[in-house]
Amino acid sequence: MAEHAAIVGAGVIGAAWAARFVLHGIDVKISDPSPHAERIMGEVLDNARAAWADLGLPEPSEGSVTFCDSIAEAVAGAVHVQESAPEDPDIKISILEAIAEACPPETVIASSTSGIKPSVLQPSIVNPERMLVGHPFNPVYLLPLVEVCGGDLTSAAAVETAMATYASISMKPLHVRVEIDAFIADRLLEAVWREALWLVNDGVATTEEIDDSIRYGFGLRWAQMGLFETYRIAGGEGGIGHFIAQFGPTLTWPYSKLMDTPQLTDDLVDTIATQSDEQSGANSIRELERIRDRNLVGFLQVLEGNGWGAGETLKAQRDRLG
Amino acid sequence: MAEHAAIVGAGVIGAAWAARFVLHGIDVKISDPSPHAERIMGEVLDNARAAWADLGLPEPSEGSVTFCDSIAEAVAGAVHVQESAPEDPDIKISILEAIAEACPPETVIASSTSGIKPSVLQPSIVNPERMLVGHPFNPVYLLPLVEVCGGDLTSAAAVETAMATYASISMKPLHVRVEIDAFIADRLLEAVWREALWLVNDGVATTEEIDDSIRYGFGLRWAQMGLFETYRIAGGEGGIGHFIAQFGPTLTWPYSKLMDTPQLTDDLVDTIATQSDEQSGANSIRELERIRDRNLVGFLQVLEGNGWGAGETLKAQRDRLG
Repeated sequence: MAEHAAIVGAGVIGAAWAARFVLHGIDVKISDPSPHAERIMGEVLDNARAAWADLGLPEPSEGSVTFCDSIAEAVAGAVHVQESAPEDPDIKISILEAIAEACPPETVIASSTSGIKPSVLQPSIVNPERMLVGHPFNPVYLLPLVEVCGGDLTSAAAVETAMATYASISMKPLHVRVEIDAFIADRLLEAVWREALWLVNDGVATTEEIDDSIRYGFGLRWAQMGLFETYRIAGGEGGIGHFIAQFGPTLTWPYSKLMDTPQLTDDLVDTIATQSDEQSGANSIRELERIRDRNLVGFLQVLEGNGWGAGETLKAQRDRLG
Repeated sequence: MAEHAAIVGAGVIGAAWAARFVLHGIDVKISDPSPHAERIMGEVLDNARAAWADLGLPEPSEGSVTFCDSIAEAVAGAVHVQESAPEDPDIKISILEAIAEACPPETVIASSTSGIKPSVLQPSIVNPERMLVGHPFNPVYLLPLVEVCGGDLTSAAAVETAMATYASISMKPLHVRVEIDAFIADRLLEAVWREALWLVNDGVATTEEIDDSIRYGFGLRWAQMGLFETYRIAGGEGGIGHFIAQFGPTLTWPYSKLMDTPQLTDDLVDTIATQSDEQSGANSIRELERIRDRNLVGFLQVLEGNGWGAGETLKAQRDRLG
C-alpha cells in the first residue's frame, strides 16, 4: 500500500488540507460523515488547482483522493493524520481516540484546532506522545503558515516530524515553543475580533467600515511585514526604541476597550529592541522602506488588476492622471 | 499666490504627506524646526517618486516644496493644513493655536494624530469648526486610507471639504462617524499591540515569531479583505452566522490576555449578519473565495519577485517542483 495522509473531517479546512497534500503528489484518505463532503472536496480542489495554475507552478502529478466509510479505514497505515473536526474539545477528543486506536503507533496525529491546547486533547489517546497541534490558516492550499504546538506529553521527535511533513508540502511551520491557548496568531486575531465586536456593538462603525480601515491601510503592510518590523520602520531613523518611546504612553490611554496591558518596563523595552535587531537589523530602515514599498506597489497592482479594494484607488489615480 | 497645502511637522508622516501632495501637482509649504527636516523630506520624496514610477503612473507635474521659517509663513493662504507634530496633546494644541491664528478662517486644519480626539485639540483655537482629524497610515504616499473624524465643534462642511481634499490626492477617506479615542484602525492595532506585548513579556514568542505568524498567514488576507469579509468566507457555505455560531464561545475562553468582551447577544449577531450582507452579499461565498485567491496569488508572486516573506515559500515550491 502506498503511503498516504489521512484527513479526518473535511469541511472548509480539512478539504483544503487534502488539496494541499494532493497537489504535492501525496495520496489522501478522507473520513467525514457529512453527505456534502465529496461535493465540498471537489469544489475546494477545483479552487486549489486554479490557484496552482495562476501561481505558474508546473502541472502537478496529483495524489489520489479516497473517501472512506470510517475513521479506522482512513487512518490505517497513514504517515500523517490531520484532524479538522468541529471546534469542540469533546468531539475532538473522541475522534482523536478513534484515530489513535487505528493508525500506526508512530504516526503523527495533528489537530487543526485554532486554539485548544494539545495537553487538553491528548491524555486519553493511545501513544499520546505523537499527538500535537498543526494549526493552519484558510485557504490552507495557499497560505503558508502552520503553527506547530506540542502538549505536556508530546515528544520532541513528533514535533520535528510534523515540521518536516509540513515543510515538504511547501508550508512555513512555526514552532509554538510555549503551549498557550490560541497559540500565537489567533491570540492576535482574537484581540482584534473582540475590539471589533465592541465597535459594532457600540455603534461606532459598521463591519464594512472596520474592514475598510484594515484593507486600505495596515492590512497592506501586514501581508509582507508583521507588527514589529512595521513599527521598526514607523519609528523612523530612531527605530523601534523611538517608536515605543513615542507611543508607549498610549498603553495607559483609552485606545482599546480592553485595558489590561503589560507594564512597559525597561526590561521589556530592551527585550523587544534586542529581538527586533536580531530579526531585522541586517537591513537599514531605508532598505526596509524600499522593500516594503516594492511589495506594496506589487500588491496594489495585483488589486487593481483584480478590480478589488485598494486597487480601486490606484485605478482612480491612473484614470485621473493618464 | 498659487494655492498650496501647508505641512506643519515634517517627520516620517509629515514628509510623506508632503510627497503625496507634491506628486499630485500641489505646492507645499513646510514648517518644521528640526535641522534634519530638509534631508528627510528629500529622502522621503525620492522614495515616493520611485514608488510612483513602479506603479506605472504618468510622469507627474510636481508641485513645489518650500521650507518656511515659521508656522505663520507656511500656513498663510493655505487651502489645507496638515499638522503632524509629535503625539503629545499639549504640543499639538499649541501648534494648532498658532496655525489657526495665521491661516484663513475657512481653511481646514487637519491633525494627523493617531488617537487624540479632535474635541480635545480644538477648543482653544480660533474658528474651531474647521479643525478635525485626518489620520493617515505610513507610508502616506502609498497607503490610501485616511480616517476623518470631527470633534464636538467641527462643522459638517469641514468634514466634507477634508474628504474631498483627500479624495483629490487619490486617498480613501473613511469618515469616523462617532468620535472615539484612537478612531477605528488604531483601536484594532492597539488591541494587537497590547496582546503582542504580553506574548513577548511572558516569553511565549519573539518579535520575529509574532511577525511570522502575521505575514505568512492572516496578514496576506488582510491586504485585500478585512476581518468580517474574511470570516464570512471562513464560515463556509453557512456564512458569517455559521462562523459566529462556531467560534462565538471562544470569547469566554482564555484566548486573549484581555478578557473584557461584549456579550454575543442575538441582537449583536443579527447586526453583524445584516451589515455583512450589505457589505458582501453581492458576491457568493464561492465568488469571494475566487476573488480572494486571485489576490493572494498576485501577492505571493509579488513577494517572490522581491525575495521577501511568504514569497520564499512560493520560490521553494517552484524550485522543488520545477
